[in-house]
Amino acid sequence: MLIVMKRDATREEILRVKEKIAGMGYTSHEIPGAQRVAIGITGNAGKINPESFNTMGGVEEAIPVSKPYKLAGRDAKRENSEIRVGSELIGGKELAIIAGPCSVESWDQLIQTARAVKEAGAKFLRGGAFKPRTSPYTFQGMKEEGLVLLREARAETGLKIVTEVKDTLTLTAVAEVADVIQIGARNMSNFGLLEAAGELRTPVLLKRGISATIEELLMAAEYILARGNYDVILCERGIRTFEPSTRNTLDLNAVPVIKKLSHLPIIVDPSHGIGMWEGVSAMALAGIAAGADGLMIEVHPDPGAALSDGYQSLKPHRFKELMEKVRQIAAVVNRSVDMEVTE
Amino acid sequence: MLIVMKRDATREEILRVKEKIAGMGYTSHEIPGAQRVAIGITGNAGKINPESFNTMGGVEEAIPVSKPYKLAGRDAKRENSEIRVGSELIGGKELAIIAGPCSVESWDQLIQTARAVKEAGAKFLRGGAFKPRTSPYTFQGMKEEGLVLLREARAETGLKIVTEVKDTLTLTAVAEVADVIQIGARNMSNFGLLEAAGELRTPVLLKRGISATIEELLMAAEYILARGNYDVILCERGIRTFEPSTRNTLDLNAVPVIKKLSHLPIIVDPSHGIGMWEGVSAMALAGIAAGADGLMIEVHPDPGAALSDGYQSLKPHRFKELMEKVRQIAAVVNRSVDMEVTE
Amino acid sequence: MLIVMKRDATREEILRVKEKIAGMGYTSHEIPGAQRVAIGITGNAGKINPESFNTMGGVEEAIPVSKPYKLAGRDAKRENSEIRVGSELIGGKELAIIAGPCSVESWDQLIQTARAVKEAGAKFLRGGAFKPRTSPYTFQGMKEEGLVLLREARAETGLKIVTEVKDTLTLTAVAEVADVIQIGARNMSNFGLLEAAGELRTPVLLKRGISATIEELLMAAEYILARGNYDVILCERGIRTFEPSTRNTLDLNAVPVIKKLSHLPIIVDPSHGIGMWEGVSAMALAGIAAGADGLMIEVHPDPGAALSDGYQSLKPHRFKELMEKVRQIAAVVNRSVDMEVTE
Amino acid sequence: MLIVMKRDATREEILRVKEKIAGMGYTSHEIPGAQRVAIGITGNAGKINPESFNTMGGVEEAIPVSKPYKLAGRDAKRENSEIRVGSELIGGKELAIIAGPCSVESWDQLIQTARAVKEAGAKFLRGGAFKPRTSPYTFQGMKEEGLVLLREARAETGLKIVTEVKDTLTLTAVAEVADVIQIGARNMSNFGLLEAAGELRTPVLLKRGISATIEELLMAAEYILARGNYDVILCERGIRTFEPSTRNTLDLNAVPVIKKLSHLPIIVDPSHGIGMWEGVSAMALAGIAAGADGLMIEVHPDPGAALSDGYQSLKPHRFKELMEKVRQIAAVVNRSVDMEVTE
Repeated sequence: MLIVMKRDATREEILRVKEKIAGMGYTSHEIPGAQRVAIGITGNAGKINPESFNTMGGVEEAIPVSKPYKLAGRDAKRENSEIRVGSELIGGKELAIIAGPCSVESWDQLIQTARAVKEAGAKFLRGGAFKPRTSPYTFQGMKEEGLVLLREARAETGLKIVTEVKDTLTLTAVAEVADVIQIGARNMSNFGLLEAAGELRTPVLLKRGISATIEELLMAAEYILARGNYDVILCERGIRTFEPSTRNTLDLNAVPVIKKLSHLPIIVDPSHGIGMWEGVSAMALAGIAAGADGLMIEVHPDPGAALSDGYQSLKPHRFKELMEKVRQIAAVVNRSVDMEVTE
Repeated sequence: MLIVMKRDATREEILRVKEKIAGMGYTSHEIPGAQRVAIGITGNAGKINPESFNTMGGVEEAIPVSKPYKLAGRDAKRENSEIRVGSELIGGKELAIIAGPCSVESWDQLIQTARAVKEAGAKFLRGGAFKPRTSPYTFQGMKEEGLVLLREARAETGLKIVTEVKDTLTLTAVAEVADVIQIGARNMSNFGLLEAAGELRTPVLLKRGISATIEELLMAAEYILARGNYDVILCERGIRTFEPSTRNTLDLNAVPVIKKLSHLPIIVDPSHGIGMWEGVSAMALAGIAAGADGLMIEVHPDPGAALSDGYQSLKPHRFKELMEKVRQIAAVVNRSVDMEVTE
Repeated sequence: MLIVMKRDATREEILRVKEKIAGMGYTSHEIPGAQRVAIGITGNAGKINPESFNTMGGVEEAIPVSKPYKLAGRDAKRENSEIRVGSELIGGKELAIIAGPCSVESWDQLIQTARAVKEAGAKFLRGGAFKPRTSPYTFQGMKEEGLVLLREARAETGLKIVTEVKDTLTLTAVAEVADVIQIGARNMSNFGLLEAAGELRTPVLLKRGISATIEELLMAAEYILARGNYDVILCERGIRTFEPSTRNTLDLNAVPVIKKLSHLPIIVDPSHGIGMWEGVSAMALAGIAAGADGLMIEVHPDPGAALSDGYQSLKPHRFKELMEKVRQIAAVVNRSVDMEVTE
Repeated sequence: MLIVMKRDATREEILRVKEKIAGMGYTSHEIPGAQRVAIGITGNAGKINPESFNTMGGVEEAIPVSKPYKLAGRDAKRENSEIRVGSELIGGKELAIIAGPCSVESWDQLIQTARAVKEAGAKFLRGGAFKPRTSPYTFQGMKEEGLVLLREARAETGLKIVTEVKDTLTLTAVAEVADVIQIGARNMSNFGLLEAAGELRTPVLLKRGISATIEELLMAAEYILARGNYDVILCERGIRTFEPSTRNTLDLNAVPVIKKLSHLPIIVDPSHGIGMWEGVSAMALAGIAAGADGLMIEVHPDPGAALSDGYQSLKPHRFKELMEKVRQIAAVVNRSVDMEVTE
């Protein structure tokens, strides 16, 4: 159930609706919009009678929600959500450019990459400290030590840090350093982790699972939103299909579909999506042309020596060339990429 | 086996190589390039000894081909193929814009659409006269009558005609009208039809099968090329995946992958690819940004009344808006969309 | 629309219904059942009013059909269809065992295999004369010569011949030899070929396309049925999924699903399905346990020397061992495998 | 690296090899076999020189492992692993029959089902207390209260308990009650949970992820084995494909493939696999015919009232009928289903 308030509803009227919801034993979610406030109700086992709210002061309409997601849907919020990350906004006119190595491997590797991507226009530095890997015998990340390097890289460059959380055990440690906590594709249906991330107030970048439908991605977001963390950024990073010539099949169709269904920002990760560096730039430009709110791109100073994902990483000079084209495509679709990092 | 000739190889030397191949009982395919000629050999059962050719005059190198496709691959031809269709070229700097209704339904519907898409910048008119349909009980196209209307629409607008051939029986009739013969996704592995199209000298637009790998698409092209019809245009039109919210999953990854593997032009059909009109423009722009050589788009003056594929057809005014953006994106990736139709 | 006749409807009443349908310009399909006759109507553009028939003598009920297939569905016929092939019945209590080489390669290979599979209990000999192949450069079958060998093998062994038709051009030649015409996975949506096969009165074995849904398979069958050839046998032969360790994913779920939706027999081809000989016997037994009406299995006297599909072919002694187990599993699910070939 | 010991290697020789491995800073895994012991080495970053071991007493051979899994592969152990669960063995001649409700809903529901499945021949009772659900708004299980009921059901029936663990937080609570801990499809790549389960010595039933390849399933098992918990039972439960008529596509091909690659037991869950009760029995029989080591089946006294998965649950009398057929199929493939529960 969504309670849509009138444009001129007073603060008091809004509070009275929320108190009524609390009195029924449910949870209310105030969703501020440019025009008016909506209030989502979750925690109800059965259906709620709209009549209980339709007659209250300031209430425009009580809408039963037919989609399985409530808070993630356009019904809950007409306008696009803009997620604040310090001085940056994700989901607004400016594209969010997140770049950096797959894994943090050393201070030199990290800071060299950070400086290069910042110069090219990125505002966010990615880098995994805890790496979920298919094999227990491969490099699992620098762990806590990697987090320390990320913190230092932020101090030195002013870039915001996007880094992945692998499990609930290390969530607190990651959250202390991350400006945006990344939940990877393999954890998209790790509901315990989603709930724990929902308790935080740090923005979450939620990647689509390798075989997750778009609806399942929105339901995973709903797990986080339902706990009160409304700062969720979705990320398309390629799905598993029958095609063997690409690592995954980057599903750019998800961009216009999600824009239709949800108010949450959606960014694109072409590096994992196509999985071969020669195709990354083409798919990055395509993602922006399709309407994505940003890009997450793997950049490594020496891809051949990378401990993970080297084949799909761009060298810094190629990333720079790409960013020049990104700026031009952005302009065509009424977006922009700012040059300066403001702290 | 590919015989790559020296830059300064004489016509006589080329002919001597071709005669030798004929003498061995095989077929030679002369593949002209900007720098030099290559000669493909097909029809051989086993391996051919490169030494048989390496010592001949004018021969630079005899290369055994490891990929299953010979004529479709970059090994056979380094530069992009440009396919001539009357006054138009597909695969060059100018993008090929093909637009029109899914099915030819009436003269009014066809000519109205044709004029609208021409005005917006299309050079090619699409329209199905013979429609392969999943159900034997649904509209199967206007058939011969539809071909007559297409011919008239060309006479009146100067647009080149792209229309689908459904089977070998009607191939001759279609080939008499079509400037480009379309082989649809369901027929991509109809090898008899591919062979018959290979005997013609009309350009063929070959759509990727709904579950065909990129390599299988190139092998289907090879069937046509091996019969001597070198004018093949590939078309990505969406693959079948687990995602239910889109009709197909338009696989734009295929664009950079095919550009790497093959010299043939590759265009994108976002209408079938995403299957919902709200997403068509986003995916069309994405396709051009990814490096496609053109677009095939369904346009209908009254989508709600269309006898097939109405839900994925654009109204003329939306197509016009799209074309304005296409021009701008094209400029960013060093392509162009010309305005005038020259006959 | 289906007109279900009363149990005691007279021949005259049935004819009057059929005349009425013909008078409306539609096609009637009489579908005899154990209990009563049903009459399917095809060829109607719009809906037909049930009242037109409900009041006629002998009519039990006029049922609008909601599924896209009419003649293939259980609504049209409650009992399982049994397809007569000379002295054999497919779809009855006895399982149809079809075995033989992928391709006819020589008289020795064919007759040696034929004798072996007959001895082990097969009643049908498979063998491809026209082979649709992904590459134009690989063995395409012995063609007409192969048909001659198949005809001789039948004369000598009494086995019924199941062989594939590749295109409409060669359909007549194939139909002259085949007891059952096979339409392969790649041709399942070759509607021209389906229609042509529908005009014949030879039974058709229709394989599921590599990415065809079960509903699409039934619609392909409908194309044949709608032309009056009611002798269609369906075949599950593996679908394309993300799993790389098997050639295809044999989808045995299709067996109970098709048994629920359709009256047509469904057999299983484990050779193509799993694509590795070590797994063929396990999947064959599983298919029978799941309720399939028969098996199609590739057997080759010398798999290592086979011109196609050697890796998935069983040696004759393994096929014999398999048949012993098939008999036992058949008994558990109330089916049988007869020993003698009656001509 | 695997160190295969001679048949007559002494205990002392085995210990000396293990000490050498420990001295190199690696972990040794003693894998007892019917014929001889193998010792797996994990924890090594680079390659190990086989010469270091080949000259030691009692060593037959030091084999570098080319597959990404070491302990799960047939190289490590030729014979099938048999997992002891109290008085029961999984992976031996007797099939493991696990049955019960999807979720524990009440004492009455649980004990009624438990008695019915025991009477029909099951030795294991399944029932979820913690349920990972796609939506945060649906029933998430009875949690701790459900565990209490499972413990009581075991006390009363003697059935072994198989119940799912949802996250690391609740692992200890689940492990206290479960005879076999189930890790569900959504958690197959939750590596933190796999590692934690690897530290326990309770058998783990590991379900294949909805889009996991067989190799990825074996790698997930490897995570558990590498921590020293060698009691892993694999479970095929259906993969995600394009086919919409079944909830998932039960991939029985996985059974012979896994039997070839791994020594671990593999059971089949036809309830989730096909997702419709009418098909469950057919797929259960098919699974046993294909060579599976057991079945996991959802049974509910009143499927229409079930809080989860009602549509795919069998009623007790149908489960009983199924078990009679299972016994007969088992006999054909040299397996058995015992009648009595021995505690």
